[in-house]
Amino acid sequence: MKHHPARLIAKKRDAGELSGDEIADLIGGVVDGSLGDAQLGALLMAVCCNGMTAAETTALTLAMRDSGRVLRHDHVHKPKIDKHSTGGVGDKVSLLLAPMVAAAGLAVPMISGRGLGHTGGTIDKLAAIPGYRTDLSIERFQRVLDQCGYAMAAPSAEIAPADRRMYATRDISGTVESIPLITSSILAKKLAEGIDGLVMDVKVGRAAFMVQEHDATTLMESLCAVGRAAGIRMAALLTDMDHPLGQALGNAVEVREVLDALEGRGPADLLEVTLRLGAEMLLLGGLAASVDAGQAVLERLLADGVVRHVFRHNLELQGGDPRLCDDAGLLPRAPVVVPVPAARAGYVDDVDPLALGQVVVDLGGGRRQPTDAVDPAVGIVLATALGDAVASGQPLAFVHARTAAAAAAAAAQVAAAMPVGDERRRRGPLVRRRAD
Amino acid sequence: MKHHPARLIAKKRDAGELSGDEIADLIGGVVDGSLGDAQLGALLMAVCCNGMTAAETTALTLAMRDSGRVLRHDHVHKPKIDKHSTGGVGDKVSLLLAPMVAAAGLAVPMISGRGLGHTGGTIDKLAAIPGYRTDLSIERFQRVLDQCGYAMAAPSAEIAPADRRMYATRDISGTVESIPLITSSILAKKLAEGIDGLVMDVKVGRAAFMVQEHDATTLMESLCAVGRAAGIRMAALLTDMDHPLGQALGNAVEVREVLDALEGRGPADLLEVTLRLGAEMLLLGGLAASVDAGQAVLERLLADGVVRHVFRHNLELQGGDPRLCDDAGLLPRAPVVVPVPAARAGYVDDVDPLALGQVVVDLGGGRRQPTDAVDPAVGIVLATALGDAVASGQPLAFVHARTAAAAAAAAAQVAAAMPVGDERRRRGPLVRRRAD
Repeated sequence: MKHHPARLIAKKRDAGELSGDEIADLIGGVVDGSLGDAQLGALLMAVCCNGMTAAETTALTLAMRDSGRVLRHDHVHKPKIDKHSTGGVGDKVSLLLAPMVAAAGLAVPMISGRGLGHTGGTIDKLAAIPGYRTDLSIERFQRVLDQCGYAMAAPSAEIAPADRRMYATRDISGTVESIPLITSSILAKKLAEGIDGLVMDVKVGRAAFMVQEHDATTLMESLCAVGRAAGIRMAALLTDMDHPLGQALGNAVEVREVLDALEGRGPADLLEVTLRLGAEMLLLGGLAASVDAGQAVLERLLADGVVRHVFRHNLELQGGDPRLCDDAGLLPRAPVVVPVPAARAGYVDDVDPLALGQVVVDLGGGRRQPTDAVDPAVGIVLATALGDAVASGQPLAFVHARTAAAAAAAAAQVAAAMPVGDERRRRGPLVRRRAD
Repeated sequence: MKHHPARLIAKKRDAGELSGDEIADLIGGVVDGSLGDAQLGALLMAVCCNGMTAAETTALTLAMRDSGRVLRHDHVHKPKIDKHSTGGVGDKVSLLLAPMVAAAGLAVPMISGRGLGHTGGTIDKLAAIPGYRTDLSIERFQRVLDQCGYAMAAPSAEIAPADRRMYATRDISGTVESIPLITSSILAKKLAEGIDGLVMDVKVGRAAFMVQEHDATTLMESLCAVGRAAGIRMAALLTDMDHPLGQALGNAVEVREVLDALEGRGPADLLEVTLRLGAEMLLLGGLAASVDAGQAVLERLLADGVVRHVFRHNLELQGGDPRLCDDAGLLPRAPVVVPVPAARAGYVDDVDPLALGQVVVDLGGGRRQPTDAVDPAVGIVLATALGDAVASGQPLAFVHARTAAAAAAAAAQVAAAMPVGDERRRRGPLVRRRAD
């Protein structure tokens, strides 16, 4: 490093503003190891405590982007637009959205993450598809993108390596909760995809990273400002994560729900959020004049089976079994499926996504530690939603488990997470706020 | 660790108050390594940014003390009182003070540090005495203490090992400047000495760790409050470090100044500060009824040669050459000694301790890095003080150097640090404030 690390860290400790040159130097130290672990931990905490200006966050984002390979897709003559979600329970939007907007003429070079804790990850859901590969070389990734309009890959070591070390360090050192650090971590990787624009799905609510609408809005505004300062088009929606999205929670069960949605039988909430995000992407890419017009285009492509066709094409290109589109039975299946009966008659009074997400982890369908293996077959399929009238004994949900014992334990937890009451509650709006 | 480290760190990040149990768990992790470097860096930064309550700082101090061996001197039937300075330029007080108060009946189990940067260290000064050993076993340390009333040792790996790791981490991670961390680092080691009371010499001014009187006062009050909460008697003085203490700056040259002082020929400022600190120690140990009475006792012991006798006894017990008391020529001598002449007639307008301390480091008499070797022979001996009238060409100081080239470079720096002007400035009071 050019500068003395302790001096730069102390500058941020004293709430000073680091220059672009100083930030680039620090990120150089993150990558080549000349910034030690203790120094990185202290730096991240100083940012947590004292924040960063928009200029600092932009410089940090660009330095992290440039710490590895930055893709270019000069051969693709389409608007290159991606979507990113801050993570939730039941969020299988990407699997449905990417073929949808690709069918409409966008190119979506999507690099996604794995799940951790109650939050699922797109890469884990895709791993439930027999044969599907997400460990693509950059060359193959670009070929898939070129041929079917979207490609889905796990992050490689070549993409924003600074973020890899910083994220692992934040995770163990109590420095996850910081708007500038979250902003730069998300955007550095997305900018490295070589995109022209990004639609952010910032989840808000109990099972979201940002529980409070105020915090989620701050993050949304930071993402839009920094993304734009870094040179791409941005739009963002604040969407509800006080309840799960869709009915399937797990990996194979969520893929099955996507297959249903491709056939026009998807849950309404999943479809609403996916269509809205897709319309925002078309708007950003200049392929629609309004959100309504964009949604209309996407609905037609879905109804005409074009989206399903693009999905199948992508399966073929990424090694997945294309027969899956005709036979969801090819997905991994849990040996034990048990219903969770309502203990009494009434209305479903809550569907607690945090508790349900935890049940999926307990079943083996999610990770406690980043190194944990994930069981693709297990999960929960909701049979009722908030406010539904139920009879005593009627199944609230079904648990898909590896063993009868695990199923029984999970069923008790699911019952607790879905109490039945006398009042009929309604879910709030799915899209709470928009920023562009 | 019992608790999840990231959770405890995040609690301090959010300015929460850690319990004694949580702090003990963290320090356990510091010692056994289950708290990683990144976590320690983040924790220290969170403390820098959000501070600690007195209760937290006390718990931290006790946990750090108990991370290693805590000495007991049950065989020594005297009040066990130590003095600690926050460090300055020319501060050889301990070498004169320890035999002085030992002569008056105190036991002083003094574990001191090495110098770093412009700040000298008692252990480095003692290392200039031929044969003198500070790497004593705890058994020998206690024997020396028992036999001559004081013992001087370098910190061993057994004493407060948590502080060792924390201090090294703070040094590289921009987390040095924190009242609770400074307080606990100082007191943990002093409490492990097995003392009944401690007098703190908190330096304030340009060459002090605390430049501003407000900050130094805050540190002084923190040290007194936490020391007392940890079960020992405390007193503290704020003393001047806007100018060097005494005339000799270096290692062997400072020992020679102490030998002069033992003969009654020491510089007035050194004597004033030493007598005052000594009187505070006697007061704390119950061996004097007032500061004035204590000073009178110490002055008499010095004049009668008792202090010199105790000093010689300690030399014998710790392996030093006792003939030193009669022949200072046994100390290492620099091959080159050059005067620094005044460029013009006038009054000495400044004696910049920070610049002079840096010259000593440049000559090889101090450390840039903790692993640097120290040349005992080199240094500076001032021939004039602030406000002294000087003729053109009269020596302001003498540089003791290893080579003629080093001497010439140092002489130019010393001349710049001691400008001559037309106004007659006076030094402010040496003792600026007292706390008990």
